Amino acid sequence: MSKKRLYIYDTTLRDGQQTQGVQFSTAEKHRIVAALDALGVDYIEGGWPGANPTDSAFFDEVGQTRATVTAFGMTKRAGRSAANDDVLAAVLNAGTPSVCLVGKTHEFHVTTALGITLEENLEAISSSIAHCVSQQRETLFDAEHFFDGYKSNPGYALGCVKAALDNGARWVVLCDTNGGTLPEEVGRIVREVIAAGVPGDKLGIHTHNDTENAVACTLAAIDAGVRQLQGTLNGLGERCGNANLTTLIPTLLLKEPYASAYETGVSPEAVEGITQVSRMLDEILNRVPMRQAPYVGSSAFAHKAGLHASAILKDPTTYEHIDPGVVGNRRVIPMSNQAGQSNLRRRLTEAGLEVETGDPALGRILERIKAKEAEGYTYDTAQASFELLARDELGCLPEFFEVKRYRVTIERRKNKYDQMVSLSEAVVVVKIGGEKKLSVSDSLDTDGHDRGPVNALSKALAKDLGPYQSVIDDMRLVDFKVRITQGGTEAVTRVIIDSEDGSGRRWQTVGVSANIVDASFEALLDAVRWKLIRDCGVARAAQ
Amino acid sequence: MSKKRLYIYDTTLRDGQQTQGVQFSTAEKHRIVAALDALGVDYIEGGWPGANPTDSAFFDEVGQTRATVTAFGMTKRAGRSAANDDVLAAVLNAGTPSVCLVGKTHEFHVTTALGITLEENLEAISSSIAHCVSQQRETLFDAEHFFDGYKSNPGYALGCVKAALDNGARWVVLCDTNGGTLPEEVGRIVREVIAAGVPGDKLGIHTHNDTENAVACTLAAIDAGVRQLQGTLNGLGERCGNANLTTLIPTLLLKEPYASAYETGVSPEAVEGITQVSRMLDEILNRVPMRQAPYVGSSAFAHKAGLHASAILKDPTTYEHIDPGVVGNRRVIPMSNQAGQSNLRRRLTEAGLEVETGDPALGRILERIKAKEAEGYTYDTAQASFELLARDELGCLPEFFEVKRYRVTIERRKNKYDQMVSLSEAVVVVKIGGEKKLSVSDSLDTDGHDRGPVNALSKALAKDLGPYQSVIDDMRLVDFKVRITQGGTEAVTRVIIDSEDGSGRRWQTVGVSANIVDASFEALLDAVRWKLIRDCGVARAAQ
Repeated sequence: MSKKRLYIYDTTLRDGQQTQGVQFSTAEKHRIVAALDALGVDYIEGGWPGANPTDSAFFDEVGQTRATVTAFGMTKRAGRSAANDDVLAAVLNAGTPSVCLVGKTHEFHVTTALGITLEENLEAISSSIAHCVSQQRETLFDAEHFFDGYKSNPGYALGCVKAALDNGARWVVLCDTNGGTLPEEVGRIVREVIAAGVPGDKLGIHTHNDTENAVACTLAAIDAGVRQLQGTLNGLGERCGNANLTTLIPTLLLKEPYASAYETGVSPEAVEGITQVSRMLDEILNRVPMRQAPYVGSSAFAHKAGLHASAILKDPTTYEHIDPGVVGNRRVIPMSNQAGQSNLRRRLTEAGLEVETGDPALGRILERIKAKEAEGYTYDTAQASFELLARDELGCLPEFFEVKRYRVTIERRKNKYDQMVSLSEAVVVVKIGGEKKLSVSDSLDTDGHDRGPVNALSKALAKDLGPYQSVIDDMRLVDFKVRITQGGTEAVTRVIIDSEDGSGRRWQTVGVSANIVDASFEALLDAVRWKLIRDCGVARAAQ
Repeated sequence: MSKKRLYIYDTTLRDGQQTQGVQFSTAEKHRIVAALDALGVDYIEGGWPGANPTDSAFFDEVGQTRATVTAFGMTKRAGRSAANDDVLAAVLNAGTPSVCLVGKTHEFHVTTALGITLEENLEAISSSIAHCVSQQRETLFDAEHFFDGYKSNPGYALGCVKAALDNGARWVVLCDTNGGTLPEEVGRIVREVIAAGVPGDKLGIHTHNDTENAVACTLAAIDAGVRQLQGTLNGLGERCGNANLTTLIPTLLLKEPYASAYETGVSPEAVEGITQVSRMLDEILNRVPMRQAPYVGSSAFAHKAGLHASAILKDPTTYEHIDPGVVGNRRVIPMSNQAGQSNLRRRLTEAGLEVETGDPALGRILERIKAKEAEGYTYDTAQASFELLARDELGCLPEFFEVKRYRVTIERRKNKYDQMVSLSEAVVVVKIGGEKKLSVSDSLDTDGHDRGPVNALSKALAKDLGPYQSVIDDMRLVDFKVRITQGGTEAVTRVIIDSEDGSGRRWQTVGVSANIVDASFEALLDAVRWKLIRDCGVARAAQ
């Protein structure tokens, strides 16, 4: 049996931008387009030209893509012709090969939100679609509120769909705009629409996650016969988000019955990049990636329960529905109070430390992790700090240097131009190879801007590392997360630092203190020590 | 037609604790039990007594509950009798009215993970269930890997289910342990199980979110006839989490066909508390609540698109599938570049500021928000800082005091006992009513512990507010979040502070600077100013 083709339509740049707190720059939009194009989606909706200056700038600069770049707009307003509607003209002027127009199909919205007659709305759909088709554009009709409209007045909702198709629309996308329709009902209504004579290969589905069913509703619509699915990366979108393509794409490629019945534009090689695409989007949004995200989350293949972890070591299929490598993700056996020694040995191996079963150091490491966790530390993600702790217990943590003391001063006052300015200054005293070194740095960058106390401390520390100087020169702090957490009976500050070096390596360290600068300094010191271990030829055999 | 009863089984304290980074204390478990009991779930699984010291302590202290508290364990090991299995004995010794035993139903797991024969496993199920029943416990059998097992060997998987029921199990819970089964298949297999003679009112469903379908799979199983559903608050759980009861409970109570066909132990009044229950769990876990969470997320009813926001102002049902108040949540019209003046006026009204349409201050406020967002500020959540900015443009922001300058010193060195200790000291110069006041504070709390530079600054500031002192006495900082973000072309630090006062009010403020202490101080100042506006009788008419 030949496979049916499914078309993937991405709306991260348009509906995704409706997410609270999300606003892409033009440059960011181009980065996302490149990633989507490499992934192999069929359509990339770039925005609403005319409605938003960023969107217009985007369309002016969009280059060659394999995917069909699509401009979004709405059907013409009542009381003017499609050719004379300036909003519609702005959409067509973006010059994209494809145009998607949203329009009403729910009588309540026609009469209440638009305040026009049902006939005027049908005419607006027909003439707008016909106008875009006459401009040689592949035209899509986004049937807003279709499912609610169909439940309220099936004849009218179907009439809107047919008006769009009769006027040359390539696709009609059935939208569950308010996100309230459940999967079983989506499937039933799509089957009824197809039974009423609308061909499935002209139908798309667009769902929202307000009942946590956006993915299931999309699958139900595919089961019922639609051939286009719309969604966003990481499920971005207004309110609870759109259908999550980061989940749907692996499901369609890897899970039955979809893998055997359908083909898409996404290759098995491309799907290996999906974890990276998901993380890139979070990086652009400056969000902490959602650990529990299906397929791509850092916890998606994390096995904490002792029984599960030991079975996984025997055979990964015991507790994994797919191989994490297929989506570019990896298996994690995190540390925790519930973790046994087999988890610990596995994690040590990942850090390049081979320890025999039964080595008494294993018990000591577990005890120390437990004690540190009670103080507010966490080693689930801070693998580099975990490694340093383990090396200390195993007697293979070289003491490169010792910090004897430091002092930081932060001042904020008016400068001679009567502006408020701030400046920090740090003094760090370090002992390296018996020699005490004292150095000082301010917090100004090369442009003379204040970068704060942690920067001053970091520069003062880095000034003084004598023989290790060149090794840490390519290190930089790329993320910095702070939370108030519980340490024993008191609230403490936990800092997690992400560092990166010239080779592209990225590692995480943790510091805990009631004092935020102190917690940062601790995480910073761990980051430097880990880098020195990796690059100074220490215990190289164990790496 | 009389409604069928659905039973809700919560496993937040057991399967939820398998989440990476989650470890509840006994006190936290008791807080969660109280919230679940008030919500009206039928069963609360408290943990695995014997496997974890916290779990054993929990069962020792659990008090009277309306819900049936359940202890989790596993079927006896091969080669010993149920009565002589110490692991099973520990579970029974917890003394709960109900016991849930997990066992294998997938032949691959029996032979590979356990390494026993299929017959030995059947005998383990039968005798373990019979033993618990003989001890007068309501007994549940958790059929691990049931769906994968059924697909591989339906006869054996069904045989395990029937062995449990034949020996007196009240419920057999069909588990999709690896989370890989899709909703359509879950529905089909449950129908086949019921057709094979297993009564639906003895069946439960337990799903995981590895394909983002845990909720949909649960609904599919209910549609097929099961009467018990298992899940966790906020979808906690190993890997991608369990079925999310925070989503399922409102769906079953508020959405059709469930609302008309079924009843649960959760009352309409109790479901109004579900947003608060969800936030409480995040507070215990010290997590930022997921904004996009269905029903309970802070964005779940947030309308950003200009067209949507203006329709919502006409009639909320245009873009909402339920009334947010029914689940204790609220509608949000956030600020953003896409927000028009009608959004802005709405948000000002929420802050108690009535501004006429067409007031030129509206345009100035929008411009200023745009400029601040470009510097790295965000006002989606920091409503208190938004209000101060708006008041400033509207000419109704009183200048209670002015901070002229401050200086903070952080030192870390050895004390006389040769321990590393740190101490901060802050000097703040404030002008109040023409009078300049200089005050100093260290960072030590009443127990003599260092609380860091922000604490020292906050105390120095609070020392000096003369007439306003008593107003801010009941303020405290309850959360503190820091991210590196983009401000113009440079990385800056954004601090969001949650403050609370004696009346239970909670408000959020934002500060941005390359200097983390400075950003914190800015957010702190905003928090103090907002509190003074609320409690000093300023512009009271506008509140």
